[in-house]
Amino acid sequence: MQHVVEEKIKLVPRGNITSPKGFTSGGLHCGIRKKKQDLGWIYSEKPATAAGVYTTNLFQAAPLQVTQESIATDKCLQGVIVNSGIANACTGQQGLADAYEMRQLFAAKMQIPPEYAAVASTGLIGELLPMDKVRSGIAQIDKEHEAQANKFERAILTTDTKEKSVAVTFEIDGQNVTIGGASKGSGMIHPNMATMLGFITTDATIDQHALQQALKQNTNRSFNMITVDGDTSTNDMVLVLANGMAENRVLTEEHTQWNVFLQGLYIVCEMLAKEIARDGEGASKLVEVNVTGAQTDEAAQAISKAIISSNLVKTAIHGADANWGRVITAIGYSRQTLDPNQVYLSLGAVDVVKDGMPIAFDEQAAKEQLVQDTVKIIATVGDGEGKATAWGCDLSYEYVRINASYRT
Amino acid sequence: MQHVVEEKIKLVPRGNITSPKGFTSGGLHCGIRKKKQDLGWIYSEKPATAAGVYTTNLFQAAPLQVTQESIATDKCLQGVIVNSGIANACTGQQGLADAYEMRQLFAAKMQIPPEYAAVASTGLIGELLPMDKVRSGIAQIDKEHEAQANKFERAILTTDTKEKSVAVTFEIDGQNVTIGGASKGSGMIHPNMATMLGFITTDATIDQHALQQALKQNTNRSFNMITVDGDTSTNDMVLVLANGMAENRVLTEEHTQWNVFLQGLYIVCEMLAKEIARDGEGASKLVEVNVTGAQTDEAAQAISKAIISSNLVKTAIHGADANWGRVITAIGYSRQTLDPNQVYLSLGAVDVVKDGMPIAFDEQAAKEQLVQDTVKIIATVGDGEGKATAWGCDLSYEYVRINASYRT
Repeated sequence: MQHVVEEKIKLVPRGNITSPKGFTSGGLHCGIRKKKQDLGWIYSEKPATAAGVYTTNLFQAAPLQVTQESIATDKCLQGVIVNSGIANACTGQQGLADAYEMRQLFAAKMQIPPEYAAVASTGLIGELLPMDKVRSGIAQIDKEHEAQANKFERAILTTDTKEKSVAVTFEIDGQNVTIGGASKGSGMIHPNMATMLGFITTDATIDQHALQQALKQNTNRSFNMITVDGDTSTNDMVLVLANGMAENRVLTEEHTQWNVFLQGLYIVCEMLAKEIARDGEGASKLVEVNVTGAQTDEAAQAISKAIISSNLVKTAIHGADANWGRVITAIGYSRQTLDPNQVYLSLGAVDVVKDGMPIAFDEQAAKEQLVQDTVKIIATVGDGEGKATAWGCDLSYEYVRINASYRT
Repeated sequence: MQHVVEEKIKLVPRGNITSPKGFTSGGLHCGIRKKKQDLGWIYSEKPATAAGVYTTNLFQAAPLQVTQESIATDKCLQGVIVNSGIANACTGQQGLADAYEMRQLFAAKMQIPPEYAAVASTGLIGELLPMDKVRSGIAQIDKEHEAQANKFERAILTTDTKEKSVAVTFEIDGQNVTIGGASKGSGMIHPNMATMLGFITTDATIDQHALQQALKQNTNRSFNMITVDGDTSTNDMVLVLANGMAENRVLTEEHTQWNVFLQGLYIVCEMLAKEIARDGEGASKLVEVNVTGAQTDEAAQAISKAIISSNLVKTAIHGADANWGRVITAIGYSRQTLDPNQVYLSLGAVDVVKDGMPIAFDEQAAKEQLVQDTVKIIATVGDGEGKATAWGCDLSYEYVRINASYRT
C-alpha cells in the first residue's frame, strides 16, 4: 500500500492496534468455526476513553446493544472481545443474555469491570452462540502474552482474504502519539451478509465528546463511503479506544494540534475502509470515485455512492469496458440537483465526457486505466464546493459464485 | 402466463397493441442495428387522448423531450415511432434536431400533424442516430398493411430475449373496451443500460386528466415496482393512447365503471412489468416480493424494493439458498419505521421467521420454493394497512457476463 501521508504524520511499518502504547491483543480458535481462528481480544493497560458508531439496521445484533451500554456507563473501555462465525443477530432474549455473559466472562478474565468491556460478533444470523465453546475460549486468553495483533486481525475475519491493519504516528505537545487500527470486511457466512467491523486504538489523551465527534466525522468520510453490495449489516460497528498513555495535553477541538490528530485518525479510517473495499467478495480491483463541483459535500457523497453502487458500472469495470454512459446514468439518477451540461468525466487519466457530451477518446488508453489495481473515476458535476470520495470494487462471476452457492 | 383476472375482465388470447379498435402497428429493419429489426411504429385511425410517464434521470434523452412537447400540445397522439440500437441520449442539440426530424418524417408519412406523433429510442448512449437510415426506414412504413404487432414488439427490443405483449377486454356502458400493451425491458447495448419502454393502446373514450392520473397511479404499482439492477435509464417512458372508438361514455373518476377500467389498465401494466422483470439480463426466474402490515403503502413499497434490489438476496435466489437472514437485513436497512419483533417472513409456502426470530423449517421444502419459475417472498412487518408488491429477478453469472464482456 502506498499512501500520501502528511509530512507530520508517519506510517508505522507493519503498524497495528498494538502500536500505540499500552495495548495488547490476541486471537485463538475456540470452535465456533471449524478450523479458523474465531475469538479475538484487545486489552488496554489503562481504561481508555471510548467512542463508537453502529449500524443503522433496525435488526441491530445483541452485542451492539451490550457495547453501547458499556460505553454509555463511564464513556470508557479497557477491553474488547470479538467472535467470528456467528453474528448473534435475530437471537432474541437468549442472544442478549449470551452477549452479556460474553462480556462478563471476558471482563473477569481481564480483571476489569464488565462495563469496561465491549463485545462484537460477525457471522451467521439467527443462530445462537455455542456458549460452551465461547466460555472455554475466553478461559484460554492470556493478557500477559506478548502482543499478537496479527492473531486478532485473523480471528475477526469471515470470508475476507487478508488481514487489515494500519498505524500512524505523529507528535502532539511534543509527545509521540500513535493511532492503530484493524478491520474486517465483506465476507459471506451463511445465512448472513457482509459485516464491517473496525477497531481503532490510540495512546492519545482526548476528551470523550471530541473523540466521539472525530470518529463520527471520519466514519462518514471513510467507512460510510465504501460499498461492496449496498447491504448494510446488522452487526456493523467501529470502536475507538484512547488510553492517554502518550501523555499529551487533553485533545479537544480547541487544541492547537487538533487537526493533526483528526488527520491521523482519518488516515487510519480511510486505509482500513479502502482495504475492506479492495477485499470485497469476489473483487479483483479497488474502485475509487472522486466527485467535485457538487452543491454540497452531501450531494457529492450521494453522487459518488450512486456511481460506486451501480451494478452496471461495477460489471463494466470488471470487464475493463470504458462504459462511461453507465457512470453518467448513475449521476443522473442520484437525485441531486445539477446541470447535465456541466458534467465532466474521466476514467483515470482519460477524459471521456465534457459539458455532458461524449468526447473522442482512445479506447486502448481507456482500457489501460481500467485494468489497474486501483481504478479511478473522476467526475466534476458543476462549479459548487461540494466534494467526496467513495470506494468500492468490481462485480465479478466470483461474487455470484460466493453468494449463490454457499450451501449447494 | 397464468393470471387471475377479475371475472369482468377477460384476457385476449395473443392480445397486443392492435387488439383495441383502430390501431395498427409494424416494424422493420432500417440499419441502425446490424440485422435485427430496429424501427417500430403505432398508428391510430383517430387522434387518441394521450398520457405519458417519463424517466426521472437528469440526463433525459432527446426523444422524451419531443414526446412530452407533442402530448402537451393537444393532449393527444395519433402515432408513435420507436427505434432501437441508439438511445439518442447525451447527444445535445444535434440529437434534439434528429428527434424532431424523426417526428416530422413519421408524421408526414402518416399524414398527421407532427404534434400528434411521439418518438422513443433505446440503445447506445452518446451516439448520434444514423439519420440517413432512419429516413429510409420511415419512408418504407406502410400504414395500410395489416396489423403487425409482433413486428413492432420485436423492433423495440434490445437484449430482451422475447417479445412482451398483452391485451384485456371488458364492458363499459355495454360497449366492449380493449386495452393492449407492449414493452421492452432490460437489454444492455454498449455503452448503455437497461431501458424500459411501455406502449399501451385502448379504444376507450376517456378524459385526458383521468387517463394521466390512471397511468401514473398504475405505473407506481407496476413499472415502478420492478428492478433488474437498480439503474434508472435516461430513456424510460410509458405512453398510453386512448382513441375512443369503443364509443363508451367518457370515462372520468366519477364514471360508475371507472374501477373496471382502472383494474383493466392495471392488469396490462402489471403483466408487462412482470415480463420485463422475468426477462431481466441473465435472469433465470421471476422474484415477487409481497409486503403487508407496513405503516403506509409507501413504506411497504420501500421495504419490498429494498428486498428485491439486494444483490445478496438475488444471488441467494439464484443459488436456491434459503438465506432468510439477507431478507431480514434488507428489511432492516430500508429506512422504514417498524418493530423487528413483529416481522414474519415466508419463502413461498415455507415460514422461516416469526416475531423477528428464525423458526425451524425443512431445508428441502424451502429449496423447492426457490427453484420455482416464480419465487415468492412474503413479509409481514407489523399490523399496519400498508402493502406493496415488487418484482425482480435473480443475479446470475450470465448477468455479469452480459455486462462485463460486451466489448471484449
